[in-house]
Amino acid sequence: MAIIVAGHKNPDCDTITAAIAVADLLSKRGMEAVAVAQGPCTPDTEFVLKTFGLAAPAIETDATGKDVALVDTTELSQALDNLDKGKVVVVVDHHKLGDVTTSNPLEMWVWPVGCTGTVIKAMYEFYGIEIPKNIAGAIMLAILNDTVLFKSPTCTDADKKAVEALAKIAGVADYKSLGMDMLKIKGSVEGIPAVDLMNRDYKDFNMGGKKVGIGQVEVLDLGLLDKIKPALVEECKKLQADGRHTVMLLLTDIMKEGSEILVVSQDASLVEKAFGGKVGGALNSMWVDGCMSRKKQVVPPMEKAFA
Amino acid sequence: MAIIVAGHKNPDCDTITAAIAVADLLSKRGMEAVAVAQGPCTPDTEFVLKTFGLAAPAIETDATGKDVALVDTTELSQALDNLDKGKVVVVVDHHKLGDVTTSNPLEMWVWPVGCTGTVIKAMYEFYGIEIPKNIAGAIMLAILNDTVLFKSPTCTDADKKAVEALAKIAGVADYKSLGMDMLKIKGSVEGIPAVDLMNRDYKDFNMGGKKVGIGQVEVLDLGLLDKIKPALVEECKKLQADGRHTVMLLLTDIMKEGSEILVVSQDASLVEKAFGGKVGGALNSMWVDGCMSRKKQVVPPMEKAFA
Repeated sequence: MAIIVAGHKNPDCDTITAAIAVADLLSKRGMEAVAVAQGPCTPDTEFVLKTFGLAAPAIETDATGKDVALVDTTELSQALDNLDKGKVVVVVDHHKLGDVTTSNPLEMWVWPVGCTGTVIKAMYEFYGIEIPKNIAGAIMLAILNDTVLFKSPTCTDADKKAVEALAKIAGVADYKSLGMDMLKIKGSVEGIPAVDLMNRDYKDFNMGGKKVGIGQVEVLDLGLLDKIKPALVEECKKLQADGRHTVMLLLTDIMKEGSEILVVSQDASLVEKAFGGKVGGALNSMWVDGCMSRKKQVVPPMEKAFA
Repeated sequence: MAIIVAGHKNPDCDTITAAIAVADLLSKRGMEAVAVAQGPCTPDTEFVLKTFGLAAPAIETDATGKDVALVDTTELSQALDNLDKGKVVVVVDHHKLGDVTTSNPLEMWVWPVGCTGTVIKAMYEFYGIEIPKNIAGAIMLAILNDTVLFKSPTCTDADKKAVEALAKIAGVADYKSLGMDMLKIKGSVEGIPAVDLMNRDYKDFNMGGKKVGIGQVEVLDLGLLDKIKPALVEECKKLQADGRHTVMLLLTDIMKEGSEILVVSQDASLVEKAFGGKVGGALNSMWVDGCMSRKKQVVPPMEKAFA
């Protein structure tokens, strides 16, 4: 039975390329492995796959009875459904350690870096397996995507070194320009319904027993979102009404390097406590200067506030 | 503030030597790190430390306010007290993934091998750091200890290769003979009170919401335990009366390669289900042929039975 290699729900560029790369790596280590995705690819991921001639993974959302390699998450709420009815044998990630547990010993590669792709690059080297050109290109773009062209505070030296090395393997001369093309697609909001923007990069978390949803939309200029903001607030309200204590949407301005956070909460004072500011205005939002990373700058203070 | 490097409660040879080795490795990577232990060393661990001129780590049982590198476990019940009031920044382990979670990204090295020492050996190589002779010797013996001289079903090729390489670094010509000397001390039961044997290698688990305690005593010949078995049953009963659903003690015969399991349980049928046999006799026990590893052969079927 092949191991299914699966990332998180609402798959992003890192999750999709990591699933493809880890499936390749496990296969070359002698295991049967196949990449899957919990949903369709976003436009920026489609750009990455098309650029390097890779196919999107088949959709799979259930782990029942399967051996699983989990990439880019260790949160039950983000992993395949019925994960406890499958068997997690491999984990490759770069986030905080979540609530996934196993009954069996397993292989885990988790590093505090900006992107799963950086860990995967090291795994290929560790096992002495040559990384294919197209996979090198795809995870290179995933690193540039997750680190917002190295601008995110999550970006480490290891991420930068990995991109430099992967660009050479992939034969990409100007990775910054290619990365900017990808981020333009990722940040495109024109004609996209509010519900799709809300789900573009949305994750549920368990914080002190409360369900908290946090989405993020990254744009080159926050002004592009002015017209659609009220509709985005409505989407937050819908999600919150569906059994969540708090729903937040980070509207991240890549150029200004900060985020406006829309907040719909049973107790917004917890969010104010987390960020040391005031939620207010017509949209019930707050601007957090320098805030670009949900993982590093939003989830930890929120977890502390909810503890 | 130095990172404290800590293994599990009731520290065994692997936990102690792993804490020492990971503290050395992190220090050489530029972090301030110090090994600690949650309790005193067992006689076999003392033998290992003395053989290679290493000092026992200072005792520390509380993580409050500290940065922690966790070795040889990811179970909250086995880790430092108040782990949620500290910050786990590194994990090195070879067990199933337990219920430790973090609010921060971290570095994790977890492999399905027989001993944490085998993972640590690979980490030294990965980071291009020379492993000191005495630490090489100590983790070599830890691997021989955890794999019962390669006889345990948990033993992998990676463990064997690590021992061969570490023996050369440590300048040990006959590692099997040194390993047997260690196991004789480990298996020594003469004059040791039942309560100490019970605690020699005892761990609590959370199985389907129930607290389950499983201890293990490894001897070269089960006959050595004949006289003390009734007292060991009494120790199991005491632990079970203290809020546990089930307490089991594996009396492992290294030479015969199997275990007699003493069982004190609110529902022994779950244990019978786990091992497909009958608990009975004067001691309320069952013999499980080939059973040498709690981690690989006892915990997984027990967790399934309790699920």
